[in-house]
Amino acid sequence: MQRMRTAPGIFSIALLLCAVAGHALAESAKSAKSAASPIYGVTIPEGYRKWEMIAPAEEAAPLDELRVVLGNPAAVKAIQNATRPYPDGTILVKLAYKRKQSAEFESATVPGQPTTVQVMVKDSRRYASTGGWGFGRFVNGQPVDEAQHQTCFACHAARVKDRDYVFTRFAP
Amino acid sequence: MQRMRTAPGIFSIALLLCAVAGHALAESAKSAKSAASPIYGVTIPEGYRKWEMIAPAEEAAPLDELRVVLGNPAAVKAIQNATRPYPDGTILVKLAYKRKQSAEFESATVPGQPTTVQVMVKDSRRYASTGGWGFGRFVNGQPVDEAQHQTCFACHAARVKDRDYVFTRFAP
Repeated sequence: MQRMRTAPGIFSIALLLCAVAGHALAESAKSAKSAASPIYGVTIPEGYRKWEMIAPAEEAAPLDELRVVLGNPAAVKAIQNATRPYPDGTILVKLAYKRKQSAEFESATVPGQPTTVQVMVKDSRRYASTGGWGFGRFVNGQPVDEAQHQTCFACHAARVKDRDYVFTRFAP
Repeated sequence: MQRMRTAPGIFSIALLLCAVAGHALAESAKSAKSAASPIYGVTIPEGYRKWEMIAPAEEAAPLDELRVVLGNPAAVKAIQNATRPYPDGTILVKLAYKRKQSAEFESATVPGQPTTVQVMVKDSRRYASTGGWGFGRFVNGQPVDEAQHQTCFACHAARVKDRDYVFTRFAP
């Protein structure tokens, strides 16, 4: 009988611990949502997955990725009107996935695991020293480290300064 | 002097002919907009370029393409709710572009010339004999021939019948 009484007690404690752990996880997920990139303080913008498609791309090995850039309404408007530099409020988001052989069609490659979400935000005052752009690179919703963020602007500036630091061209 | 007077006359006639030809082209472009695919009578849906991105893909040589599938609101809702078969009114549009080496980044491939726009429309009554789907394949806004349209359903039926005839999976 002693054992019979103890067992439910243990279950209760286990359940309580699970509840506490669950709560902690939920809180951590909440704060993860608003985690900001080092240097720039850029976050993953809400609702970005519904934004208009700007262009697909592919990245060779070792990254070996399929990618799509989406743009917020300000980005789309600037592209339509060929407004350069992009106005403050422009946001571009690049979604990247591992390339994966399609199981249903031999010659097709399709998205595998998502790898990174990369964000460019235009704010000409806040980011005056980096061409007006703030950068964020996220893996599993978390920003990568400061060292990686230090490479963003240097590369964009070296290669596409004359395109207001944006690689992507609109695909009709 | 005779020549001096004739020259402007020729220019006027040439300009008039250009205007007439331009008008004819504009009219033909208008009717081109509503050209329907053989067999199915599917047209390129208005406003599709602003629809939500479902997934990118890549097609190996000889087509050698980057692709993106977009979906109308009915398609997006069906995907979110895992509603199968897709409800009537679902439209999926696949945009395809020749793969092109990026001029600015060695390891990147970007969209070159657009090649085809391919459309699937769900109407379970109208297209009862083809799994409820109507197909349209367009090059420069014009539907390709009947022979090409005869291949659409056979391939989808052979490979992805259990996925309501849709190859594309939503990329998160």
